[in-house]
Amino acid sequence: MTSSRADLIISGCAVLVHDGRGEVGFREDSAVVVRGGVVEAVVDADDVSGLAAVEWIDARGQVAMPGLINCHTHAPMVALRGVAEDLPTEAWFNDVVWPIESNLTGRDVELGARLACAEMIRGGVTCFADHYFAMDTVAAVVAECGMRAHLGEAFFSSQGAEGRERSLEFALRHRGAADGRITTALAPHAPYTVDAADLAATADLAREHGLSVHLHAAENRDQTDASLARHGRTPIEVLERAGLLGVELLIAHGTGIDADRDLPVLARASGRVAVATSPRGYLKFGWPGTTPVRALNALGIPVGLATDGAASNNSLDVWESMALTSLVQKSVEGDPRWLTARQALHHATVQSARAVGLGDSVGRIAPGRRADLVLVDLSGPHTQPVHDLAATLVHSARAADVRTTVVDGRVLMHDRELRTLDVPAIVRELEERLPALLDRSHGRRIQEYDT
Amino acid sequence: MTSSRADLIISGCAVLVHDGRGEVGFREDSAVVVRGGVVEAVVDADDVSGLAAVEWIDARGQVAMPGLINCHTHAPMVALRGVAEDLPTEAWFNDVVWPIESNLTGRDVELGARLACAEMIRGGVTCFADHYFAMDTVAAVVAECGMRAHLGEAFFSSQGAEGRERSLEFALRHRGAADGRITTALAPHAPYTVDAADLAATADLAREHGLSVHLHAAENRDQTDASLARHGRTPIEVLERAGLLGVELLIAHGTGIDADRDLPVLARASGRVAVATSPRGYLKFGWPGTTPVRALNALGIPVGLATDGAASNNSLDVWESMALTSLVQKSVEGDPRWLTARQALHHATVQSARAVGLGDSVGRIAPGRRADLVLVDLSGPHTQPVHDLAATLVHSARAADVRTTVVDGRVLMHDRELRTLDVPAIVRELEERLPALLDRSHGRRIQEYDT
Repeated sequence: MTSSRADLIISGCAVLVHDGRGEVGFREDSAVVVRGGVVEAVVDADDVSGLAAVEWIDARGQVAMPGLINCHTHAPMVALRGVAEDLPTEAWFNDVVWPIESNLTGRDVELGARLACAEMIRGGVTCFADHYFAMDTVAAVVAECGMRAHLGEAFFSSQGAEGRERSLEFALRHRGAADGRITTALAPHAPYTVDAADLAATADLAREHGLSVHLHAAENRDQTDASLARHGRTPIEVLERAGLLGVELLIAHGTGIDADRDLPVLARASGRVAVATSPRGYLKFGWPGTTPVRALNALGIPVGLATDGAASNNSLDVWESMALTSLVQKSVEGDPRWLTARQALHHATVQSARAVGLGDSVGRIAPGRRADLVLVDLSGPHTQPVHDLAATLVHSARAADVRTTVVDGRVLMHDRELRTLDVPAIVRELEERLPALLDRSHGRRIQEYDT
Repeated sequence: MTSSRADLIISGCAVLVHDGRGEVGFREDSAVVVRGGVVEAVVDADDVSGLAAVEWIDARGQVAMPGLINCHTHAPMVALRGVAEDLPTEAWFNDVVWPIESNLTGRDVELGARLACAEMIRGGVTCFADHYFAMDTVAAVVAECGMRAHLGEAFFSSQGAEGRERSLEFALRHRGAADGRITTALAPHAPYTVDAADLAATADLAREHGLSVHLHAAENRDQTDASLARHGRTPIEVLERAGLLGVELLIAHGTGIDADRDLPVLARASGRVAVATSPRGYLKFGWPGTTPVRALNALGIPVGLATDGAASNNSLDVWESMALTSLVQKSVEGDPRWLTARQALHHATVQSARAVGLGDSVGRIAPGRRADLVLVDLSGPHTQPVHDLAATLVHSARAADVRTTVVDGRVLMHDRELRTLDVPAIVRELEERLPALLDRSHGRRIQEYDT
C-alpha cells in the first residue's frame, strides 16, 4: 500500500471476502483502498487512519460486497415493463413483445438502456450481460453511465447472413471499449430462431476471433421437446453439434436441460460453458422446471444470476434473483440445507463473474481486482438484529438497501443519489415515445415464436 | 363531505379502489379525505382545493392503496431473524427455535414487537394477526405504535388447562383495546400440539364468547400424513370434529390440505373459515406444496397474505408475500393467466381483511371504512414506465417504495420517517439481551416438534 493519496477509501464496514477456495466469508471493521480503478488493499479500519484519499466514504454499519452482475438481460426492454402480463410464453412473444419490437428505434433503445442502468446502479448491479438490438447505442450508454457490461448484438437466421455479420462487427468494434469496461460476445438468439449452419458459423467465428458467445437455449421443457421432435436432438445437443460447447459460451436459462441426455453432453464440453438463471420469469410463465443449479454445480459449470428483461421479469432486481435462486432451488430439490445463503452469495459473486468471462478481474473484493463493489446498509428494522451476515444479506436485505455503487473505482451512486444518470429526464422523454413504440396496429413481428 | 377542517387530506394520487363486486381498479388524480379515523370521501383532486385539513399530504406521483395486512405472524420473533438457517422443519423447531424460546422474557417480546412494528410500518403493513406468547406486551406495543392488530395468546396442551384459560382471558380482556384497533382470537398452537379435547373446548369457548380462533393447521404434507397415521383423520378433519369449522377460524398455511379429503370438509364448514399463506417459508423449508389458493378460492374461502415469523421468513415483508403468492401460484398451477396482479391485490386487500375478521371495516379505501392506507412512490427507475398500475404495484414495486403509512387516520410514517418508534434505541437494547436469549446450553425446549 503506497502512502500517496488514494482515489477512494471506504472505511469502517464489514467486507465480504473469499478464502483460498473461493468460499464466502466476512472481514469485520475493515477498509478498502482503491487506486487506479483497482482494489489496492483490504485492511483493518485502523490501518487507514493516516491515509488520504480523493473521496473517503465512512461506511460504518454497512457491508461492502462485490457488485452484483446481471448475467443475462435485455436492458432496453424496461420500456416494456408491465406491458405483457399474465401471458403464456408464446402469446407473450407473438402477440405483444415481437410486434412492439418491430417499432423499436435507436432512441427507444437508448432511453431504455439509460433507465435500465439507473435501475441497476440503484439495485447494486455493477455489470450486466446484454443481448439485444441497436447495441451501439447500449455501448454508448455504458460508456456514459460508468457501468461494466458484456454486450452482444442479437441476430436471427431470418435476417440472413447480414445479422450474423453485424453481430461479429459489433463484437470486434466494441471489445475493450469504455476504458476496458465493455467486453463483447457473438449473440445468436436461440437454437429455435438460428439454424444449424448459422450456429456452426458462429462457433467458427468465435474461435477465429477469440470471442465468446451468449445465447438462449433450452429455455423451457417445451423447447427441448420441440427440438427433439424436429431434429432428434435436444437444444444442448444442437449446440454441441454446432461446435458451440467448444468455445466460451453463456447459456441463458436452461430450465429445459434434460438430466439424462444433456448433463453428459455438458460434462464433456471443452469450452468454458456457463449458465445464467433468472428464476422469477420461470415462475411467472408457469414453466414446469427451473435451471438445474445443483447438477450444473456438480459438473463445475458456473451458474450466474440474472433477471432477463423487465418485460418478463418486471424489474432488473438481481438482489431478488439471488434470494429467489436460493428459495426455488431449496424447493425443487426438496432440501432446505441446499443453496444456503453463502452459496447464493457465491453464485452472486465468483460464479456470476465467471459466467460473463470476468472471473479474473471482478467478483471479489481483493487486491488487484477491479474495484466494482457496493455498500449495503443494514441499519433498517428489516435487517436487524444480525445473527448471520450471509443470511441477512440474502434473505432480509433488499436492493433498496444498497446505498453506494462503485465501478472501476468510480462512485456511480452515493447515499442513493445517482451521479451519472438523470431519471426524470429519461422518463419524460420515454413517455412521449411510448404511443409509437406500443402501436401494434401494423400487424408486423420481428420474429415468430414457434419452438 | 362537510366543509369544516378535515383531519387528513391526501391529494393528487391515484387511488386503488374496489368496484361493486369487490374487484380492484384505480381512480387517477384523486384525493382522500379523512375525518375521525375514517375515510370520509374519495374524490377528484380538484374537489379538495377549497378544503382545509390538520395534515395535508401532496401525493402526486404516488398511489394510495389499502394498508397491507399480515394475516399470520409471530412479530417478536424478529429477534431470531437469521438464527436458524437452512434447516429442515423439525431441526428448526427442536434444535434452535424452541430451545431459544424457553429463554424468552417479557422484555424480549416487547423489544421484538417494537422492532417488528417498525419493520411492518415501513413496509406498508397497517394490521397484523399475531400468535405468540406474552401477548399483553404485544398489545401494549400496538397501543403505543398506532398499528391495528388481531392478537391471540398461543397455548399448547402441554401447559394443561392453564394455557387455554390464559388465552381466553387475554382475548376477553384486550378485545376492543387501543381505541378499537385491537381485536382478539383464541390461539391454540396447532392440532399436533393441542389435543382433541382442548380443540373442542376452544370451539365451545369461541361460540360462548363470540371469539374467533387463529391456529396453525396442515402446515405441510408431513403433518397431514402423520395425522392420518395417528388419528385416521387429516388435520382439517380434526378441526371439523372439534367443532372449529363452525366458528370464525383463521388457519395458517394449509399447504398440507388434501384436495380429495379436505376440500369437501372445508366446503361444508358453517363458520367463517379463512386461510393465511406465507409462501416464502414453504420454499425455504423445501416443503412439497403450497397453499391451494385456487381451490380455496373456488370454495369462497378467503386467502390472506402473511409472512409467518421472521425466524423462518427472514422478514415481515408482506409486499414480497404478495408478489411471491402470484408467482408461486402461477408455477404450481402451471398457468400464467392465473393469479394476475389484480387478483394478488384482491388477496392483499379484501381477502386479507376478511381473513382477520375485519372485512367490513378495512381492506378498501372507501367512505365509512377505517382510514388504513399507504402511499407508494412509483417515481423510481424500477417502477417506470407504468403501463399497468396493478402489475407495477405487485411485480415492480417493493416494500421500500412505501413512503407513508396511515392507520385509523393517524400518520405513523411520513416520507419514510417513523413517527411512533425509535429503531436505534430498540436495536441497542435488544442486542444487549441477545446472548441470554440465544443461550441453548440449558437443553430445555418449550415444546417438542413431533407431528
